[in-house]
This record gives sequence, C-alpha cells and structure tokens, in this order.
Amino acid sequence: MEFLDHYQKIVAEAVDKYTFTEKPSELYEPMNYIISHGGKRLRPIMVLMGNELFDGDMEKAIKPALAIEFFHNFTLIHDDIMDEAPIRRNKPTIHTLHGINVGILSGDALLIKAYQFFEDLEPELFKKCIKIFSETGAVLCEGQQNDVNFETQKHVSYDEYINMITSKTGVLSAASFQIGALIAGASEEDAELIYNFGKHIGIAFQIMDDYLDVFGDMEQFGKKHAGDIYENKKTILYLLALEHANEEELSELNYWFSKKTDNVDKVYSVEKIFRRTKVDDKVLRLIQKHNEIGQSYLDKINLPDEKKLPFRELANYLLRRES
Amino acid sequence: MEFLDHYQKIVAEAVDKYTFTEKPSELYEPMNYIISHGGKRLRPIMVLMGNELFDGDMEKAIKPALAIEFFHNFTLIHDDIMDEAPIRRNKPTIHTLHGINVGILSGDALLIKAYQFFEDLEPELFKKCIKIFSETGAVLCEGQQNDVNFETQKHVSYDEYINMITSKTGVLSAASFQIGALIAGASEEDAELIYNFGKHIGIAFQIMDDYLDVFGDMEQFGKKHAGDIYENKKTILYLLALEHANEEELSELNYWFSKKTDNVDKVYSVEKIFRRTKVDDKVLRLIQKHNEIGQSYLDKINLPDEKKLPFRELANYLLRRES
Repeated sequence: MEFLDHYQKIVAEAVDKYTFTEKPSELYEPMNYIISHGGKRLRPIMVLMGNELFDGDMEKAIKPALAIEFFHNFTLIHDDIMDEAPIRRNKPTIHTLHGINVGILSGDALLIKAYQFFEDLEPELFKKCIKIFSETGAVLCEGQQNDVNFETQKHVSYDEYINMITSKTGVLSAASFQIGALIAGASEEDAELIYNFGKHIGIAFQIMDDYLDVFGDMEQFGKKHAGDIYENKKTILYLLALEHANEEELSELNYWFSKKTDNVDKVYSVEKIFRRTKVDDKVLRLIQKHNEIGQSYLDKINLPDEKKLPFRELANYLLRRES
Repeated sequence: MEFLDHYQKIVAEAVDKYTFTEKPSELYEPMNYIISHGGKRLRPIMVLMGNELFDGDMEKAIKPALAIEFFHNFTLIHDDIMDEAPIRRNKPTIHTLHGINVGILSGDALLIKAYQFFEDLEPELFKKCIKIFSETGAVLCEGQQNDVNFETQKHVSYDEYINMITSKTGVLSAASFQIGALIAGASEEDAELIYNFGKHIGIAFQIMDDYLDVFGDMEQFGKKHAGDIYENKKTILYLLALEHANEEELSELNYWFSKKTDNVDKVYSVEKIFRRTKVDDKVLRLIQKHNEIGQSYLDKINLPDEKKLPFRELANYLLRRES
C-alpha cells in the first residue's frame, strides 16, 4: 500500500517531532511509550486523507491528526486497564509496567494533550473541530459502557450491537475524515459525506474483526484464535447464529456460552454451528453492505474519481485483511 | 456567609437543570451521583464571582461554571481510585459502589462533558476558555503525579512542595476566576490579575489543609485527626520541621516517618516536634503571606472596593476555617 506508507512516514515524523518533553517523566514517558509503538496509525492518516481530498494544507492538519492518535491511545490505555490486558502491540501495557494509577493518570493527560493539539487552528475552525472531537469522545465512552453491559445483558439485539460498534469504532474514523476535511475548508455537506464514509467503513472494519477472530489467520494478528468464543463474547457471529439456529443448535450454543472453559471442543462446536447457520457468509455480506454504503457517500462528493482512489484503496485494505 | 449561600443556590439549581439524562445509565448515573453530592462547590462559584466582578451575564457563565465543577469531580473520581478511598463527602466513592472500571470510564466521560459545557460561547471566547481549561488540566495531572512521586522521593524541597500544591489546587481556583472574568469581557490584564488572586488563595487554602490536619478540629471535617502523620505524608509542616529541627528532633522525626503505624505516640511525638520547631506559627505566617499576595493582585484591579468585598470575604472564609 504505497500511499499508506507515504502517510505513515509523515505521521511517524510528526510523532517524533512532538514527543513530550514535559516533566514529570513518570507521567509523560508512558504517554511517549504508547504513542511511539504506533500500530498502523490509521486514524491520523484518515485526518490527513480527508484534508488532502479537499486540497488542504498538510502542515495545518498534522497536529490535529496527532490529536486523534493521542485520543485513540488514551482510550487504549484506559481500556487495557479495564480489560486487564497485559500486552498491546506486542509490548507490555502501561498499567502492567507502571501500575493502574500511572495508567489512569497518563491516559487522562493524553486526552487533555489531544485537546491542546487543536490550538493552532483559528477560533471558528477550532470550535468546529473541538465540538466534533468532544462529541466523538462522549459517544465512545457510551459505546465502551454498552460493550461492558452486553457481557451481563441476557439478550442483545442486532441493532444494539450495530449501535455499539458504531459508537466504539465507527464514529472515530468518521470524525477523523471529517476533521481533516473541515481543516481543508471543505463545505459542511462534503465534510458530512466523508464522515459517513468513515462511519460505515469503521463499522465494516469492526464486523470484520469479529469475523477474523474465528475465521481469520490469527498468527497474522498475534491474537489467540477464536478468543471471542472462549470469552463468551456476544459478537455479531454469535448474535446472528442465535437468530438462525435450529432448536438443537440453539441448546448447544447456550450450553457452550453458559460456561467459561479452555476446552477446544467449545471452539470446534461453536464454529460448526456458525458454519451450519451460514453466519460466516451472512457476516461477509454485512461487511460488504456497509462497505457499499460507505462508498455511496464517497460517490456523492463532487470531485474527480482519481482523488477518491486512496479512499477506495484504504477500504479495500481494511476489509480484505487476509480474508 | 450570605453571598456564598446565594451562589450555592444558583449552582445547585444549575446542577439540577443539567442532570445527565443520556444513556447508558451505568455510565451517566455515577456522574450525576458525584455531582449531586456537591461539597461546597467553590470552584463554580469562583467562575460566577469572576464573572460578576466584571458585570458579566450570569446566564452566560453558568454552564462554564458547571464545566469547572465537572472537571473537579472528574479528578476526584480518578484520585479516589488511585488513593483507594472508600468515602467521599460521607458517601461511598464511585469505584467502591460500581468497581474501578466504571470509575475510570465515568471520570473520562465527565471530563469530556466538561469540555462540552463551554460550547455555547462564541468561537473567540470558546477558544480562550478551552485553552485555559486544557492547560489547567495538564498542570493538574502533573501536580498529581508529583504528589505521588513525593511519597517515594527521599528529599522534597520547599519549592517542589509549593509547585506541587500550586499545580494541584492553585491553578484550578485561578483558572475558575479567570474564565469567569473573560466571559464577562474583562481585559486580558484584569483576567490575569484575578487569576493570580485565585492562585495564591488556592495555595494558602492547600497549606491550611495541611495545618488543619494536625492542628484543626477534625470532627468538623469528618477526617481522621493527623491522618497525614499516620500516612507519613510529606506535608509543609513536615518539610519545615526537617529544616528547623535539632539533631535529636531530626532523628525522632526520621524514626517515626520511617514506619507506618497506628501508634498514637507517633502523632503525639511528631506534633510536639512541630510545636517545638514552631512550624505551626511558620505555616500560619505562610498562609498569611499567600493571602496577602493574592489580595495585592485584587488591589490592582481598577474597580471600586465594594465590588471586591466578596473576594475578601471568600478568602477569609477559606483561610479561617475554624482555626
């Protein structure tokens, strides 16, 4: 992905340039630690892409792009505490290295620093971006809480699930494109269109995550195969299987999802039901559907097709991860 | 304190009016819970006072005043997790009731909601206030980390201590007055003067907190008498005592502060050293000094004295708490 490499280099340089040098180091070093370990840095890239689509100035967009990356990493630090996750991007998580207190506080500071990275924008634009940013943050917290609620909630509907992943993933990629577009001076309408593109690509991406957990080549991700099944997670696969299972399959599903066990028979049995109820195909079609909705918003932007090419490439990249 | 009652009623009404009604309730109820239990709500009152001093419109200042209160409560939720505090304002803390995860997340959401409560301001003013707000937040995180560092740091200097309490307490009261003033349309210079008044009153208040822990009537606060001594906290009393103790007193201080014990002899002995080294008087003079510096900034504001009266009353109220 040549254009991704190009953007990734720009973001990496900005991350270096804006390394935190403030004191106390016990607060700022963990922030530098998680930011420097990168990951794919897709969200800041989305800001830059949204900006470039409307011929914006990259210089003006780069700090807001980092703000989005800081925000994303703030959520990761706090989520990892909540999930008691020991590892992130093949490195020990911050609370594992420094304790929960440092994790909480450096996450808080990273969120506040994210806000500060919009401060070079002129007041009108600053306010527009901050409003989107805060709204996105609030919705993400709601999505995170809903995700937690699902664990103990007996029945989770399909709509509730889609809402949850929209809040947890869709709105941040949406807002990233939108903020980039607004910084370039795009109209509210165009910014809204690229927002919706980002939202549906984000939803599709998150559904793909559920799919790949079971049907993907996990080695590529460094994740445990079918971890969601072991954890009794109410993924889209599980929810659709409940809907389409016959009586026998239903009681088998309920049996396995009523206990936590490392028994590999559980994964084997659940996967078989997933295939028999054809939820694997259904989920792939759902991903395709959201991809197409996303593309349809992109189509409506009145710009030459070749300018939109990177967006289509990005969608393909996100949704074809090895499947 | 008649004028305080007046403001407290206004803030209480605003808190009621802006109760969070969003979903999921598992996220928003804890936020309402901590906000509704109030405390003295001095910081939002400072916003309103700063606003009124420069003849601002109360309606315009009330949501930013709540933003400051939300921010303060966000820090309390997260601090209580870090301190493993079971009780706050005579009620169980949020993490005690709902677990650490809800505490982290509802704190995060409260911080983000705080930002949103500035959104009624016009862009120029919005940006001014948000910049102050973010800077204050960042400094508070630094102060909190420094406070934590002091626990294990062998030597804490007097300056380090003053910097820490300035970050943890001074800047928030300072920013509260300043934001209120700016919303009223005060000049940058006047806003800076009232900022510095708030900063030094905040410092004096925090030093008074150390003093009252040992020499105050604790029943009034519902706190344990001399809790800081039991906890080996490096308070201003302790730091000054180290400076002024003779050899014998020094070794006795070091003996008691090298162990954690509920032995009441510890408190008795340490208090005696505090009195013998006269740090009680020194600390009261330090409080008076910061009070006077604060007042001197107030004096410089070119407004009739009667307009400044509530500020002097507030300072007296804060610094004469039963002592």
